Parts: sequence; C-alpha cells; structure tokens
Amino acid sequence: MTAARSAVVAEEIVRARAYLLRAAEPPAPATRKLADLLGPVGAAQAVRRGDVAEDVAAETSARCGADRVDADLAAAAACGARLLVPEDPDWPQWPFACFALTDRKDLAPPLALWVRGPGPLADLTDRAVAMVGARAATGYGTHTAAELAAGLAAAEQTVVSGAAIGIDGAAHRGALAAGGPTIAVLACGLDRAYPTSHAGLIERIARQGLVVSEYPPGAVPARHRFLVRNRLIAALSAGTVVVEAALRSGAQRTASDARELGTVLMAVPGPVTSAASAGCHELIRQGALLVTRAEEITEATGRLGVELAQEPVREGRDTDALDEVQARVHDALPPRAARDIAWLAVEAGLGPDVVRSALNELERRGLAEFHEGRWQRSGKGRRQAQERSARRR
Amino acid sequence: MTAARSAVVAEEIVRARAYLLRAAEPPAPATRKLADLLGPVGAAQAVRRGDVAEDVAAETSARCGADRVDADLAAAAACGARLLVPEDPDWPQWPFACFALTDRKDLAPPLALWVRGPGPLADLTDRAVAMVGARAATGYGTHTAAELAAGLAAAEQTVVSGAAIGIDGAAHRGALAAGGPTIAVLACGLDRAYPTSHAGLIERIARQGLVVSEYPPGAVPARHRFLVRNRLIAALSAGTVVVEAALRSGAQRTASDARELGTVLMAVPGPVTSAASAGCHELIRQGALLVTRAEEITEATGRLGVELAQEPVREGRDTDALDEVQARVHDALPPRAARDIAWLAVEAGLGPDVVRSALNELERRGLAEFHEGRWQRSGKGRRQAQERSARRR
Repeated sequence: MTAARSAVVAEEIVRARAYLLRAAEPPAPATRKLADLLGPVGAAQAVRRGDVAEDVAAETSARCGADRVDADLAAAAACGARLLVPEDPDWPQWPFACFALTDRKDLAPPLALWVRGPGPLADLTDRAVAMVGARAATGYGTHTAAELAAGLAAAEQTVVSGAAIGIDGAAHRGALAAGGPTIAVLACGLDRAYPTSHAGLIERIARQGLVVSEYPPGAVPARHRFLVRNRLIAALSAGTVVVEAALRSGAQRTASDARELGTVLMAVPGPVTSAASAGCHELIRQGALLVTRAEEITEATGRLGVELAQEPVREGRDTDALDEVQARVHDALPPRAARDIAWLAVEAGLGPDVVRSALNELERRGLAEFHEGRWQRSGKGRRQAQERSARRR
Repeated sequence: MTAARSAVVAEEIVRARAYLLRAAEPPAPATRKLADLLGPVGAAQAVRRGDVAEDVAAETSARCGADRVDADLAAAAACGARLLVPEDPDWPQWPFACFALTDRKDLAPPLALWVRGPGPLADLTDRAVAMVGARAATGYGTHTAAELAAGLAAAEQTVVSGAAIGIDGAAHRGALAAGGPTIAVLACGLDRAYPTSHAGLIERIARQGLVVSEYPPGAVPARHRFLVRNRLIAALSAGTVVVEAALRSGAQRTASDARELGTVLMAVPGPVTSAASAGCHELIRQGALLVTRAEEITEATGRLGVELAQEPVREGRDTDALDEVQARVHDALPPRAARDIAWLAVEAGLGPDVVRSALNELERRGLAEFHEGRWQRSGKGRRQAQERSARRR
C-alpha cells in the first residue's frame, strides 16, 4: 500500500503510525513521546485499548475508537501519496533535530508525514529555506518573493512554504520557474488542494518537489491547523525568510517558531508606508536579519564560509583612490582655470611642498595637467567635477 | 561686531578663534589641541609667528600670513551671522563631548562655529536628531523624510541636516512645516546659499532655527568639505537617521561618523528593488537600528525610559482571546450547521468534557449558540469565519 521508497519499513510500523496520526490531533507531544517509548506498534496498541496515561488520553480519547488505517492508506495511494515515518531513511532526521531545542509543547515533532511527490524529503531538506508571508501581499511582495525563491533555487536550495495565496504561492512559483524543487506543507489532507485556486500549483509542486502534511486524507484546513502546520515549515528549513507580513499574521507565528527552534530568522524590508511590510520591520527591529538578495540568505543559512555573499558592486570614480591631501588639492584646482602652486597652497590650506607632491601624483593619474607654470584639471578630472556638481545641485 | 549673545566672551578670544578657523582648514586636530593648551589667544599668536610644532605648521603654514579677521567678522555680521566659540555658554558642550570617544584625527571638534539664526545652539541640540540621505532621493524617500522630521518636531526634537537637495531638504522642510526648529550645517561660508536652489529654504531655517558652518564667509563648498562637515551633523545629534542612501554615498560617511562618535545610528528601510535604499539596508545589516516612525527614533535617542515607542495598534478579533482548546472547538463548529457534542469531540480531537466546557465559554463570549441539543456558531462567529475564509482564498 505504501510506495516503494518506504518498503524498507515494516508494514505494521507504517500502519501503527497512520493510526496514531489520525487518533491524535497534531501537535500531540504526549502521544509522540509514548511512540518513542514503546515504539509505534506498542503505542498504537496501548491507545487502542485506552490503556494510557492521562496526557495521552487527553490527546487520543475522542478518536481512538475509529480505525481508519486501511481507508487512509488507500485514499493516500489514490492521490499518489504515501506515509513517511521516522523509521524511514528519507525521514528528515537532521532538520527535525531542532525540535529538541525547545520545551514548548506545541512545538512537538510530527508522528509521521503524508508526502506526495518524487522528492526524497531528507535530501530536499539538506539545503532548504522557508519563505512565508502575507496572503494579502502587494505586487512588490510577490515580485520580491518570486525573485528571491528563483535565486535560492539557482543556488540549489529547496524553497519550503505553505502553498497559500500571496507570498507562499509566489515563493513556490519562483522556485519552480528556476527549475528548483520546492516543498509545500499543507494544513489539510493531501487529497485536497487548498486553497482551491492553487490546485494547479500544488499539482506542479507534487511533480517537481514534494507536498507534505501531517493531516490524513479528508482532513479539512481548520484555522488552528494552519498555526500547527507552520512549525513544520520552520523545522524543515535551515532558516525562515518573511516576505511581507502585517503586524498580526500567521507569518509572524512561523517566525516565532523559527526563532524558538533555533533556525535563522530573516525578513525582507519594504516601504515604511506599506502595512504589508510592518511585520517584517518589527521582526528586524527584534533581531531578525534583514535580507535583500538570495546570496544574503544562503550566506546566513548555508555551510559556514562556503557561501559568503559577494559584496555588491560599487560604481567607482578615479578620484576615489586619492588620499585626503590629494583630494583636497584636486578640489582646490578650479574646474576651468589654471593656478600656480602658491595659490593652490592657500586654497587647499596645505604647504607648497605638500601641494607640489600631490599635484605630481594627480598628473600621474591623469587628473591634473601642468602648462606654463600653472596647474589645471585634466579633461577627465573636469568632467568628473561637472558630474559631481550636477549631482549636488 | 559679534551678536549680543556672545557678548559674555572677550572680544580677543572671538578674534583669535576667527583667525585660527581660517588659518587651519578643518578638521585641524593639532591646531585645536594647541588652542586647548595655550588658550585661543596664545595659540593664534604662536600660529601667526610660525612658532609651532610641525603638526600645527602642516595645518596652518599656507594661510597663517593672511589676517582676515576684521573682514570675516564684518562679512558675517552683514549676513546676520556671528562666531560662536567654545567659551560661550551657547556652545554645544555636551553633544560635542562625543568627540572624546574617538581617536580618529579627522573627527576633531571644531575650533569655533559660524552661526546664523535665533536658535541658541546648546538648547537646540539638547534633544536633536540628524537626518541625512541621498541627493538623488526618490519620492518615497523625500515623503518619508518629511513625515519623520515632522513627527520629530512634534516630539520637540531638533532636526539636524545638511541642506542638500533630496533627503536633507525634505527633512528640514518637514521640521519647519511642523513648526519645529531645525539646524542646517553647511560646507561653505554662511554668506553663500548652497545649493543655490535651496536659498529660500536656508533663509527660512535661519529665521526659525540655525544655520551653522565651520567655514568663514566666502568659503566655497569643495568636495572634501562636505565629508568634513558631515561629522558636525553627527556630533550635534543624539542619533543619526539615514533615509535612502546608495551603496556609496556621503550619507554613509555621516553614518560611519555617527557610529565612531558613539551616537545612535538608525536607517529607514525601503523596497529591496530600490538602489536608493540599498545603503540603508546595508547599514541595518551591519547593526544600524531599523526605524519606521518618529516614536521609534525618539525611543532610541530620547531620555531613557521617558520616550518609549507605543506598540503599534493591532486590529483584534474576538477569537484572538481564546485559548488553544477553545479555538479548536470553535474551528470544529461548522459555519452553517449545528452539531452535538459527540460529533464536535471527534472533529476537534478532544474529550467530550473538554469540548463541553469550551462550548460554555464560547457561548459566554457570544461565539457559539445552543439550540435543541446542538451547538452552532453565533452570528458574530459566523461572520468572522467568513471573513477569514475570504482572506485565505
């Protein structure tokens, strides 16, 4: 019933986890702990019998009677999905190690994950960045998300997001357009496409990357499931980039999860006049890293020292290389007249010997010319002075 | 010759400093030190005689012969300016204490300042913020600078800038429009208006605030003088806000001066697609504080604890106050149907007793209604669910 990739895992383990995943609404920290303690098969038996401690009973008593394992596995297979369990080599063991960093009960690791698509999850999350943000995104926000995601894909990073409209969708699309894999983590069963307007996008992600959910087939996207889902987006990635977020938003919840899980939190700035960027600015003020380019993201999340961002290219001028004295003498040269050294010394406020030596250097650089006992700017120097003057005015 | 305010200072001191200020092109750290050591009168005599150490001679030898004190004081008086000296109670002693924090020779305090306008400099700089930025500003940048400056003026902060076109001019105008004082620090003599297109603006600043320069009347705005001038803008303020700056820009020089002088460095973000904001983003990445509102600026520069920024107002929903269990039960209530507790318990994945208690709380808050053995959302809850659903799609 499960796909070939999971064939290494005993069927009873897959069935036990499928049962537990439906019996306990995520996050289910007590049930997860029980599975760690007794193993999934023993834990499933104990839950079925109701022979569990109070905390596990609180998570499982409402649904432990319904055994829908066969139906769930069949429905998953029907839409090309399989259940990925922690016992599988494809399980993202390393990214999920971040769950050990927090005591917050709502940040428990999942019991298993329903997955759909060709991507081996462990490989895809070896170099992954989460990109999240406002549903009510602006054109600026979606443009920026798509550009950054394309840049990340080009740098062989997997873009992880939530398939929502707005920033999420733009991030997935940007990654796909650059030929990169991308992971969508849904808050409903994989047999549903939510939001419905993104059915085509989710289909493409399932072909080129991976669609992931904790929720069994048929589960509806209830509000709290979006919040619970957000922890998986953060945990599957080395860092989370927030591209546009209002002051109160689900993206900020993902950001707080990312911070709590010890991954790198980043935010993209925007106009201070845009409410859609206000949450990003608040995050940066609270310590999130401001990022503007994909290289800055990979520098923060990539392997240390390997992926340092290139310094942005700065336009240079010939006069930039001058030291302070040379610059003062160059400034003292009038744009359209020649002067002797005594005049230039007073104008620059420097001794004549200092001025003479600076003028020789300026001549060598083609910035000053000597004619009949007087110095003047060279043609090149004159043009630059005019440009500067035009900029100042 | 000097204005009434400086009458407390002996005329020979004012004359000695006027002489030194022209003899030594700023910054003149050695000459400034000599004046501290011998007093301005003794230092002026020594410089006139050429009886000085090599470092002072390097700063003064070219111009020490020209005595233009009478002409300078007359020219200043003719344009309504006076020479403010460190011996005057109006001297910004406290702001300039920041110069002691650095060993950088180019960050020497001024020997004196030419000032024009009604503002007592020490009072005006008691609560002052520098606002600087690109000449080639965008409409977004000038709008934001003017808004922030008006907000600062309303908070009784003096806005200090350089009277350049672009961000500087917008900052001065915003402060003036809000009825606040503002200080323009020029890189030329006060008898000149530079840039010429800002002659009217500089005139208004001289009426409502203060125009300041280290340079004697007649001095032209040479390139290096802009850089040297920038240190005064930073030093006269408790903090410097950069609003739009390209990657290489004079504003970044002011920022580096502000950092070196130990004042608060702030920058305003903008679109990552705008080259005019790239310098601001780089500054924030290097540790400058991101600011979006005047309150955030005064919080960073104002007296500790007195001027904390108000938390931005967040739009609230009734369901925000629910705890996690209540929110899950509320989510489980279908938008347009009534269900019994057993159904809701399975849907929410919670025990029936927990669900019952949550429903009672939801009813108390007007979010759920009980009819004939079944629960449903109240009208208010239904409306909010529809709004959320519309936002998600």
